[in-house]
Amino acid sequence: MSTWVEKLDARATAAESMVCVGLDPDPSKMAITDTLEFNRRIIDATHDLVCAYKPQLAFYEAMGADGFEALRATVAHIRSVAPDVVIVGDGKRGDIGSTADAYARAMFDYFDFDTVTLHAYLGRDSVAPFLKYGGRGAIIVCRTSNPGAAELQDYVLEGTDGRTVYQRVADATEEWDNEGRLGIVVGATYPEEMSVLRAEHPGLPILIPGVGAQGGDVEAATRAGVNSDGRGVMISSSRGIIYASGSADEFDSAARDATSALRDEINRALPATSTQ
Amino acid sequence: MSTWVEKLDARATAAESMVCVGLDPDPSKMAITDTLEFNRRIIDATHDLVCAYKPQLAFYEAMGADGFEALRATVAHIRSVAPDVVIVGDGKRGDIGSTADAYARAMFDYFDFDTVTLHAYLGRDSVAPFLKYGGRGAIIVCRTSNPGAAELQDYVLEGTDGRTVYQRVADATEEWDNEGRLGIVVGATYPEEMSVLRAEHPGLPILIPGVGAQGGDVEAATRAGVNSDGRGVMISSSRGIIYASGSADEFDSAARDATSALRDEINRALPATSTQ
Repeated sequence: MSTWVEKLDARATAAESMVCVGLDPDPSKMAITDTLEFNRRIIDATHDLVCAYKPQLAFYEAMGADGFEALRATVAHIRSVAPDVVIVGDGKRGDIGSTADAYARAMFDYFDFDTVTLHAYLGRDSVAPFLKYGGRGAIIVCRTSNPGAAELQDYVLEGTDGRTVYQRVADATEEWDNEGRLGIVVGATYPEEMSVLRAEHPGLPILIPGVGAQGGDVEAATRAGVNSDGRGVMISSSRGIIYASGSADEFDSAARDATSALRDEINRALPATSTQ
Repeated sequence: MSTWVEKLDARATAAESMVCVGLDPDPSKMAITDTLEFNRRIIDATHDLVCAYKPQLAFYEAMGADGFEALRATVAHIRSVAPDVVIVGDGKRGDIGSTADAYARAMFDYFDFDTVTLHAYLGRDSVAPFLKYGGRGAIIVCRTSNPGAAELQDYVLEGTDGRTVYQRVADATEEWDNEGRLGIVVGATYPEEMSVLRAEHPGLPILIPGVGAQGGDVEAATRAGVNSDGRGVMISSSRGIIYASGSADEFDSAARDATSALRDEINRALPATSTQ
């Protein structure tokens, strides 16, 4: 069994890219109105430059049933033109029992994602159903990049030798699977916290949102996040790529240019000792 | 502006009911195959006995776009036959920025829920977009009833005079809105913790899942959860009601009987001093 993490590593190596493009279609910003066609053109223009695509489910849900259809067709299109690219369903679900089972069916059977983002506030019970699908898995929301993150995530837990809430989440993520199918989400705006998490969890893949429009520094995030092989991260940008141009004729070529620039920026930041 | 919490209180008073029926259609359990028809018959048979319906989004998502259509039509049917009943979209979303805005559009503009469940791991930024819709609001996942809940929720936070993670979530919920549009989710299986939360937050509505199939004791949960008026809770049962009978002819009347029995069990448990 090959896992999504192995697929990611192979793809990052082959494409020399740790760029993840966020496919977050917003009708108020898209250069054309058809969601599937918008995504197809972005994918066709960028897939040789990326290691992953990450559709954010909220944007499709806001379009209702039509959005669900468009998302499913988008995943099928990626499978068709770029089968080696990892597809991350960013839905941040978090529930238990038969409900978590149903979420896993939606994410893996209906949409066919390789991996999904999850909230782990409910503990291992909320993650286990996503580990029943062979090499598929999940990425647990750990430390986010927004101001409100500190309201809960930064507290230190009594009796843990100084572990914060978000460190506890990362520790638990390691405990919940022995087969390397879980990762963590760490926002780009806190490279110091990311460095600590990387040192403590050398093997966990890290999904890094928050570069570009959200203000995270690419060089700092890359250096803080990569593993000892100079890989192990997906650096995700959405608005900076898919809305790089508002022109119906040129938004896809502009997306390609922005993806290429981000890929280069990441690769330039890699420590010289890494193998990539 | 009337809030969903005021609507809930008025409905609980008028119907003398704190029963919330979970509309969680599972194709492997439903007595008939058509999801919308299944929900319509449950709703038609029970709406005079309930204060709320709570569709669990996972079950609809697992059916894909058709499930989304069925859920939207289910909400419209409730609005049509029982406009005074509160409709809770149980999706436990939790994200920030433009993504949280998109989730709010999905939940309120597309589905037309009165309120939704949310994860608050990302802090107030993940809740604020749901407070931009007049009297609508949200119910924050606080203390769940599953074994894994203790892996994070029960830790005590340093520097807080002994507050646990879940108490901090309840405290933050109070801080995030001055207009009474937020509540908390507390599982039925921990009545002691619920008593403490109720004492600390006399005004917060509490959504209580976990009775019936999940093993929570109705009497204990009711006594622990109600406010000083003997209301302020939604006690939610799904499987025990909607799958009370596997007969295509009788599942709706069996659901009515189960709803009525739960309503009576809750009302018998009310403290004699309450006004209901």
